[in-house]
Amino acid sequence: MLNDPLRQALPAPGPLLLTACAHRRQQLEGRLAGLAALVPAGVPASRNYPANTYPFRASSHFLYLVGVSLEGAVLLVAAGQSALFLPARDAFDDLWHGPLASPEELSALLGLEVRPLASLSSALADRIPAIAPCMHAQGLASVRAVRAARPVQAKEADHQLALALVALRLVHDEAALAEMQRAMDVSVQAHRVGMAATRTSTFEREICAAMEATCSRAGFGTAYGSIVTVHGEVLHNHHHHHALRAGDLLLADVGSESDSGYASDITRTWPVSGRFSGSQREIYELVLAMQEAAIAKVGPGVRYRDVHLTAARVLVDGLCQLGVLRGDVDALVEDGTYALFFPHGIGHLLGLDVHDMEDLGDLAGYAPGRARSAQFGLSYLRLDRELEPGMVVTIEPGFYQVPSLLADPARVGLRAHAIDRARLARYQDVRGIRIEDDVLVTAQGSAVLTGALEKQPDQIERLVSA
Amino acid sequence: MLNDPLRQALPAPGPLLLTACAHRRQQLEGRLAGLAALVPAGVPASRNYPANTYPFRASSHFLYLVGVSLEGAVLLVAAGQSALFLPARDAFDDLWHGPLASPEELSALLGLEVRPLASLSSALADRIPAIAPCMHAQGLASVRAVRAARPVQAKEADHQLALALVALRLVHDEAALAEMQRAMDVSVQAHRVGMAATRTSTFEREICAAMEATCSRAGFGTAYGSIVTVHGEVLHNHHHHHALRAGDLLLADVGSESDSGYASDITRTWPVSGRFSGSQREIYELVLAMQEAAIAKVGPGVRYRDVHLTAARVLVDGLCQLGVLRGDVDALVEDGTYALFFPHGIGHLLGLDVHDMEDLGDLAGYAPGRARSAQFGLSYLRLDRELEPGMVVTIEPGFYQVPSLLADPARVGLRAHAIDRARLARYQDVRGIRIEDDVLVTAQGSAVLTGALEKQPDQIERLVSA
Repeated sequence: MLNDPLRQALPAPGPLLLTACAHRRQQLEGRLAGLAALVPAGVPASRNYPANTYPFRASSHFLYLVGVSLEGAVLLVAAGQSALFLPARDAFDDLWHGPLASPEELSALLGLEVRPLASLSSALADRIPAIAPCMHAQGLASVRAVRAARPVQAKEADHQLALALVALRLVHDEAALAEMQRAMDVSVQAHRVGMAATRTSTFEREICAAMEATCSRAGFGTAYGSIVTVHGEVLHNHHHHHALRAGDLLLADVGSESDSGYASDITRTWPVSGRFSGSQREIYELVLAMQEAAIAKVGPGVRYRDVHLTAARVLVDGLCQLGVLRGDVDALVEDGTYALFFPHGIGHLLGLDVHDMEDLGDLAGYAPGRARSAQFGLSYLRLDRELEPGMVVTIEPGFYQVPSLLADPARVGLRAHAIDRARLARYQDVRGIRIEDDVLVTAQGSAVLTGALEKQPDQIERLVSA
Repeated sequence: MLNDPLRQALPAPGPLLLTACAHRRQQLEGRLAGLAALVPAGVPASRNYPANTYPFRASSHFLYLVGVSLEGAVLLVAAGQSALFLPARDAFDDLWHGPLASPEELSALLGLEVRPLASLSSALADRIPAIAPCMHAQGLASVRAVRAARPVQAKEADHQLALALVALRLVHDEAALAEMQRAMDVSVQAHRVGMAATRTSTFEREICAAMEATCSRAGFGTAYGSIVTVHGEVLHNHHHHHALRAGDLLLADVGSESDSGYASDITRTWPVSGRFSGSQREIYELVLAMQEAAIAKVGPGVRYRDVHLTAARVLVDGLCQLGVLRGDVDALVEDGTYALFFPHGIGHLLGLDVHDMEDLGDLAGYAPGRARSAQFGLSYLRLDRELEPGMVVTIEPGFYQVPSLLADPARVGLRAHAIDRARLARYQDVRGIRIEDDVLVTAQGSAVLTGALEKQPDQIERLVSA
C-alpha cells in the first residue's frame, strides 16, 4: 500500500501535505465552535453529454482540508466528529475507473475516519450544517431539505463557515507554499519554453500548446484558461487562433496547477520577432517600473489598494513624461484616468484558486466594511486588505490600448482630453503588455516566488531569439 | 469582415459547414411539422469558482445547426420563423472578452435572423416549445415555466424533437465528414508523435502531453479525456502518473475535436521498449484479427450487434487455439464468456459527440424496439442498429486482464471453468490491448477513415523505435 496508496486510480499526495490537512481540519473544528460543516468535493462536470466529463478537480475547500480529489466525497467537520463520507462504489467501478484504496486504507492514509455517504444524514442527526461552496456538488439532497426548512439558520451557518475558511486560507502554511512553489517552478519553465517556441511558430496556438505541454509533461494542469495572444488588449482572451506577425507583441498569461490543486499565475510579454521596437521597449520598461514599484510596496500592514495606486502613479508619471497624458499626476491617479490604459486591478490573492476564494465573493478579498469602488478600473480590484505575512498575491500591472475604451472614454467616466492622441499614435504597435509575478508577504517585506523567470527586456529578447 | 468575420472573439467556420448548417435547419423545420424547437448553445461550466470556467464548447445539437460556439445563444427552429437569439452583451465584454461581430454581421454570416434573447418568450407566444438537451443551459427560465405548466405536452415535444435530431444526425453530410476527417488526420499525427515520444519518456503523462500538444498546436481540442496508460485494463483510465517500464504495453486512446465540435476517436497499443514480447505479439495479433474481421463485416443493412459478435467469435476462436479458453466456440460467444477478456462493446456512433447523441440516452444508438442486453459485456454495447451509408462508427476490439473480473467471473455470471489459468499465466505481461479505427459505412461496404495510421505490429515497432 505504501508505494501506491490510492492504487491506479489517483496519484498519492505527499506526507507534508497530508499532515498539514490534518492540522487544518483541527483548526477549522476549533473555529466552528460546535457548528457542523459539510465540505463537498463535488463531482465531474459534464461537457457535451453526461458521461463525457471535464477532468475532475475537487473543490478548493475540500482540497484544503483533505488534499486529494475524491469524487463525490463529503467531509464533515465537527468537534470530535470529523469524518470523510464516501459514495458507494459501483460494482463495475474497478473495471471502468480502476481500483481505489479501501475505506480502511484511505482512513489510514488521511488520518480521518471514513464512512459511507449514505450514513451522513444520520450522523448529522437534527443539526443544521453549514455547506461550503462547490461548483458541482451532488448527494446532499436530504441535507439540503433539512436546511431548506430552516433557511435563516442555514444562511448564518454558511456565513460562519465562510469566515472561518477565509481566516485560515488567507495565510498559507508551509505545505501550501511548497505546493505553490512546485506549480510556479513549472510555470517558469513553461514561459521559457513559450519564448523559445515563438520563432518557429506561425500561430498563437503553437506557443500555447508548447507552454501547456510543459506543464502537463510534469504532471501539472493549468490553473485557469491560458491567455496566449497577440491581442493582449482583450484582457481575458482565451482564443489562440491568430497568426503571429513580426511586429507583434505576444502576451502569455499561463499558470500551472499542482495535482493537489494549488495555483501559480505568471504573465510575460515578448516580441514575436525577438526584438522590441523602440516604442514597444519604452512602454515595456514603463510597465516593468510599475511592477517593480508595486512589489517594493508590498509588505505586512500595507493596504493592497495602495499597491495598486502605487503602480497607477508610476504609469501616469511615465505617460506624462512620454507626452501621452497631460495634466496633474495626482489628479490623473485620483480620478482614475490611468485606467484608460490600465483598466484592471494590480492583482489578487493566490492559493488553491488563482483568484483565491472568489467563490465566496469579496469576503476573502475585501476587509470587513470595505466594498468595491465605483470608479472604472479600481472597481475591478479583487483585493483590498492590509497584507499579512503568509499571504500570496499576484502583482500584474499592464498597459493596453483597448479600442472601445479609447474611442469613448467618457462612457466609463474618464477624461478623454487628458490624452495627447498624436503622441499616443507613436505607440500604435503596443496593443497590450502585462508583467505578472507571484509575491509572498513576509515579516520583513516580500519575496518574489516567481523571480527566477526573466523579465528585463534584454533577457526577454535573448530567450526569444535563442 | 470577410477576413475575420467573428473578430478577435472566435475563429470563423468555413463556407461548406455554414451552408450545410442552413440546409440542416431547413430539414429540421420540415421534420418538426409546426412544432417550435429551442436549441440552446449553453454557457461555460464553472470549475473551482464561477468565473473560472472550462473552455466553452456549445452543445452538439447547436453546433450541428449553427456551426459556431456562441455563448448563451438559443436557436429557435420553427417553420418560417427560425432565428438565433443572442444574449445582450455587457458594456465591458469588449474589454474582457473581445469584440464580436454585430448582430447584422452575424446574421449575414450565418444566413439566419439574429434577435435579442430577451425577445424569445414573445416570439414563442403561447406555444409549448421542445428544448434540445444541453449540459449547461441558461436563460430559458420563462420558457421552462410555461412548459412546467404543461408537462405532458412538453415531454411529447421533446421526444418529437429528439427523434428528428436522431434521424438527421445519424447520417453525416459532406460537411460533417470533412470536419471529422480533419480531426482524424490530426489524431493520426498525434498517435505517431506519441509512439515516437515513448523512448524518451519516463511517465505516461509525457506521452499524453506530446499527443495532446500535437492536437492543440493544430487548433484542435480533445473530444474526450485522453487515455494514455500502461494500465489499459482500467477501461476509462484518465490518470497519467504511472512510470513506464520496459516490459509494459502502452494503450493510447486519444482523439481530437475540431473547433466546429466534430470528434475523432483512435486507439493504438504499443510496447514501451519498442519490441513486443512473444506473448504480447500473440495477443496483439489476435486483437488485430478481431478488428479486421469486424471492419470486414461493416456494411449497409448489417446489424451492428453482429459486428460485435463477429469480433467476439474471433477472440474466442483465438483464445481456444492458444489454450486460454476451453469449450465450444459457439457456446462461449453465446453465453458471453468472451466478455471476461473483452468486457466492452465493439464501438459506437461517432459524430459531434464521441459517443454521438448519447445525451439522448439510447435513442440514437438502439433501433426502435431494441434495448440493452442483460448479459455482462454485451450490456455495454452502445449501438444496435442496422448500419446505413453515411453513418460513422468506431471499431475498437480489445483484450484485457481485469483482476477483479478474473478473480470472480461468477460475480458477473461468467464461466470461470472455461479458463485455463496455467495457459493464461503465459500472457501476464498483457494487461490491456485495444485497437480502434473510425469507419464510414458506404453504399458498397465501408471505408476506414483513420486507415492511414499504422497498426501492424512490425510497423508499430518501427514507429516506437524510430
